[in-house]
Amino acid sequence: MVELSPGFTLIDGQPCTELNVRDRGLAYGDGLFETLRVAQGRIPLLEQHLARLSRGADRLHIACDTRLLAQELSQLALQLGGGILKLILTRGDGQRGYALPKPQRPRRIVQVAALPAYPPAHAEQGVCLYPCATRLGQQPLLAGIKHLNRLEQVLARAEWDDPAYAEGLVCDQQGAPVECTVSNLFLRYQGGWLTPALDQCGVQGVMRDYLCTQLDAVGQPVGVRPVTQAELLASSEVFCCNSVFGVWPVIGLGSQQWSIGPHTRQAQALAQQVLL
Amino acid sequence: MVELSPGFTLIDGQPCTELNVRDRGLAYGDGLFETLRVAQGRIPLLEQHLARLSRGADRLHIACDTRLLAQELSQLALQLGGGILKLILTRGDGQRGYALPKPQRPRRIVQVAALPAYPPAHAEQGVCLYPCATRLGQQPLLAGIKHLNRLEQVLARAEWDDPAYAEGLVCDQQGAPVECTVSNLFLRYQGGWLTPALDQCGVQGVMRDYLCTQLDAVGQPVGVRPVTQAELLASSEVFCCNSVFGVWPVIGLGSQQWSIGPHTRQAQALAQQVLL
Repeated sequence: MVELSPGFTLIDGQPCTELNVRDRGLAYGDGLFETLRVAQGRIPLLEQHLARLSRGADRLHIACDTRLLAQELSQLALQLGGGILKLILTRGDGQRGYALPKPQRPRRIVQVAALPAYPPAHAEQGVCLYPCATRLGQQPLLAGIKHLNRLEQVLARAEWDDPAYAEGLVCDQQGAPVECTVSNLFLRYQGGWLTPALDQCGVQGVMRDYLCTQLDAVGQPVGVRPVTQAELLASSEVFCCNSVFGVWPVIGLGSQQWSIGPHTRQAQALAQQVLL
Repeated sequence: MVELSPGFTLIDGQPCTELNVRDRGLAYGDGLFETLRVAQGRIPLLEQHLARLSRGADRLHIACDTRLLAQELSQLALQLGGGILKLILTRGDGQRGYALPKPQRPRRIVQVAALPAYPPAHAEQGVCLYPCATRLGQQPLLAGIKHLNRLEQVLARAEWDDPAYAEGLVCDQQGAPVECTVSNLFLRYQGGWLTPALDQCGVQGVMRDYLCTQLDAVGQPVGVRPVTQAELLASSEVFCCNSVFGVWPVIGLGSQQWSIGPHTRQAQALAQQVLL
């Protein structure tokens, strides 16, 4: 059995770390990705990750064999035990030009990485958000899916270097809060949960969707709609979430401060249950 | 001397067609590109291409050694004689996550291709534009530069397959014409030239800028401002241009038809002069 150290990569099922330069993932960001947490040889929320990938593949007209991917990822997870698997699905090689290649031979790339070493304080004592000036463009055709065109996130993340900020808040062109650079946003507003709608921009995180379902099941339904900066600032609790770190309570944004409330701890516990 | 057949590739100056999968060009479309026409061993508008690349590199905080690039491209052009060189500049390898790698080691990739075999009729008798439903997102941070996040162009180009359409018209979120999928748009409107402003979306083509300068020099200044669909339809002449094919007169868009006028032929002659 091959030892799965960080950097180990499968391309179309074969161990390999080199890619043909004609791949359209490089040329145009023409593809999708998923970042999968591996714990105890399993991938929490694997089905939801593959469902999002499949939605993205439909949107981009890329064939996506989710059964094959589920099999390959599950087997790698078993070998890995704990860590991160990053899956990239590209449209495969192209010739010059944007027109879709015929036939298309999509390429799957799976990279092994270690679990990020986040300070435990992020989850326990909460995090401060950097208020990113980079705003997301409105593009309903690409909103919600996890495609490889991520320069907006690169520019937003490049705005700060101070480790006092664990995450950054990113708004849309009108200045309305949408998400964080690698996670989604939940607000406790007027006695209920709210999370920004993601039909114009942003990535629809699998942990966000999971929490919406789970919170609903415990009688705490989550409203999904556009959210204003004023509503964010008037919220009593705020958290960000993704499928790698779960839930981080948000305690600061600029001069604004929040305390960590019981509703956030409830959501955090729900996330922890599925991530373990 | 190495024979430069289509597909020949230099990565950081070395013949090679394989790329490390950790390159952020693949992961996030984190880079820029230029498509350069080579004729008689020279690259027309090389300086303008490298100036645009340099503007993009500034915008994305990627180091860009234009002197080295000019040297490498010029030497390849001499060997190639005629064809296309595609230059990709990426941020180089990354670890997991959007944060900029430290240190950054940008990677340059130069690929050789043949000149596209466009039918001569495109330039002589004009082309019809497909009216793309895909609209460009508003993103001033990325507008004008030629970055690797090109899913909008991929989706727009995927809308038609009929060779009756040589190009497609792409509008912004409000439905205002911005550009074509691989070229810029000029309109003869109320006795003068107009080209859409590209400060919110679109790619600032080097041929567009060249023609603006040249047309100005012959007493035909080009207005640069947002353009409406109504203005496009009310125009007396329309053309699209880029640095590979020069100028194609536009003779149709949906049910709208234009004839090819003398002003378009003048612009076409100016483009031809520099491309030869």
